[in-house]
Amino acid sequence: MSTPLLLHARDKTSIGRIAAELGRFFAERVDAAAHYGPAFERLWRLAAERVRGGKLVRPLLLVHMHAALTADADDGSNDDEPSPELVRLAATLELLHFSFLLHDDVIDGDVLRRGRSNLIGALAAEATAAAPELGSDPQSRAHWARSGALLMGDLVLAEVHQVFARLDVPGERRIRLLDLLAHAVTESVAGEQLDVGLSDRVIAPQLETILEMSRLKTATYSFELPLRMAAALASAPTRVDVALATAGRHLGLAFQLRDDVLSVFGDPELHGKDAFSDLREGKETALIAFARMTPVWEAIEPHFSSPTLTDARAREVRDRLEESGARHFVEGVIDVELAALDRVLDDSSTGLPTRARRVLSDVADRLAERVS
Amino acid sequence: MSTPLLLHARDKTSIGRIAAELGRFFAERVDAAAHYGPAFERLWRLAAERVRGGKLVRPLLLVHMHAALTADADDGSNDDEPSPELVRLAATLELLHFSFLLHDDVIDGDVLRRGRSNLIGALAAEATAAAPELGSDPQSRAHWARSGALLMGDLVLAEVHQVFARLDVPGERRIRLLDLLAHAVTESVAGEQLDVGLSDRVIAPQLETILEMSRLKTATYSFELPLRMAAALASAPTRVDVALATAGRHLGLAFQLRDDVLSVFGDPELHGKDAFSDLREGKETALIAFARMTPVWEAIEPHFSSPTLTDARAREVRDRLEESGARHFVEGVIDVELAALDRVLDDSSTGLPTRARRVLSDVADRLAERVS
Repeated sequence: MSTPLLLHARDKTSIGRIAAELGRFFAERVDAAAHYGPAFERLWRLAAERVRGGKLVRPLLLVHMHAALTADADDGSNDDEPSPELVRLAATLELLHFSFLLHDDVIDGDVLRRGRSNLIGALAAEATAAAPELGSDPQSRAHWARSGALLMGDLVLAEVHQVFARLDVPGERRIRLLDLLAHAVTESVAGEQLDVGLSDRVIAPQLETILEMSRLKTATYSFELPLRMAAALASAPTRVDVALATAGRHLGLAFQLRDDVLSVFGDPELHGKDAFSDLREGKETALIAFARMTPVWEAIEPHFSSPTLTDARAREVRDRLEESGARHFVEGVIDVELAALDRVLDDSSTGLPTRARRVLSDVADRLAERVS
Repeated sequence: MSTPLLLHARDKTSIGRIAAELGRFFAERVDAAAHYGPAFERLWRLAAERVRGGKLVRPLLLVHMHAALTADADDGSNDDEPSPELVRLAATLELLHFSFLLHDDVIDGDVLRRGRSNLIGALAAEATAAAPELGSDPQSRAHWARSGALLMGDLVLAEVHQVFARLDVPGERRIRLLDLLAHAVTESVAGEQLDVGLSDRVIAPQLETILEMSRLKTATYSFELPLRMAAALASAPTRVDVALATAGRHLGLAFQLRDDVLSVFGDPELHGKDAFSDLREGKETALIAFARMTPVWEAIEPHFSSPTLTDARAREVRDRLEESGARHFVEGVIDVELAALDRVLDDSSTGLPTRARRVLSDVADRLAERVS
């Protein structure tokens, strides 16, 4: 997820504060970890490096929507700086994202993310350098690295919950935020399980299942959660919360489908993934589900999910996907989702303030322009 | 961990209430999971089956110590039933244990626990039965099963934190309990990382490292956490908390070392593990660390960490371990830990009530008698 979400001139300040909060969080953990020996300290230190440099899309969505919902009712202005508590919660959304990525990478056996080594890759390289005399074999080092990422995912997931649990807000609001977190964790895990089941051919690759998987795995924690947390923190009325939940689902699904299209048809220089890795890994996306239902699939199937697929052959598969109408279809679904978002924005009964509508439509516009 | 901890006639009631709380927890989750499709519901259902039948050692330790600390100061009597909140927290300790076991099994690639298939084994068997037409291969089914256990570990870890976060107690006490949980999670993960590093030969198998690993991985969450939670809930003074922390560390290390001895020298019929699995898996225990420092190690080394080790050969390795003095040494360390516990119990400055001392000495007695 690499779309910048710089909607306002003030965003650079917000990004700076969220990044500083993340920096402080990891610096404290690295210090405390040293007590348990060099391996644990290195684990935290490498994790801190891996968190840096994200676009902070989820934190910014929370900060923007919160500012919009607490803006002056008359002129929509809001000169308040985000409070330290809001910044902490915003940073926590990045941590939640990080913990999900860590466990995704463990499950997928990935050692790269955004074109450089992820935590698993970094730990494997470290293990070799750290203990040449112990004679551990490459398989053991890979196991050590994978296990480290799994354990760091646990630690970060626990820390996310600790932040929510310690919020210094009235009990009712804390429970509300905890409910939203529980909902997001459940849906993200349910979505990840579907994703794994589809790849492992334990769950049938129906188009409907794939769309549900995309919504659960991405839309809930990346869009619905930040938007609804903003509503809870701003004490917005229920109808605003419901409208934001609906908007988040549509935006999130559109976002994930755009991501699927770009990983096959986009410029790998821009999206930073391995070109055609989705095709090589046999990722069950909406593109593939649609193509399966067309006669063109016969020409695609022998090359799909083949780790040795050459770039030249992958470009042919990409052209067959285009020919099957899969790209056209998925872009149509994105349009449907964005149209559904427009209906939420046009519905005056939701009570969404003008500035909140503008945040949502700005995000939708970025998404429509997105090329990486 | 299979020592029964039936210290009081009333324990059967406590066990019944904790088991009922766990049953309710899982029944609710299974219901909610059905909304996300059959695979997610099955995951929760199989997890519920795997939790059942534990000896509930950690929950009972909390309940006993809490009763002891809130007993009548004059005659040590306490006729109070554990409160619903205490029962919920006690059940949550079993959930924390379960989530750690799940991720341990994922890391170790184990499919058995206590002689029957664990969640991974159950999920792999299910996958075959559920979707024969999808043609997934054995490797994919194993991946599906392992990933399911990883994801369930995440869900359960999140739920544990949700219970702590939602406690209806004064803010200060909630923060105290959250601190104890954070401490236990950090130490357990640090201990697990050491364990993995030792097995993968990324960390040198020093005796001191192995003792520290055992303390971190087992003693903190299994003994120190329940005991200190009892202190926090009973508003016990700091010196009581400190004494219980010390007692928990000694008991916990003694417990884990006894476990290591029994898995090699005990009766596999009684401890329920595969006989000699520690030797086959190359588990770096205190026994092994000691043996490494003796001349007998030369005779052990070729057979240690060999998955194809026969039972006959394993019995020879066991005899060599005995001969090396490793068993004698580790039993000595257990005695030292129990002696340190006695010093805590004999120290009148700790302010530990008589009944609390009795709980600790009863647990120590069970441990000394333990044969499985």
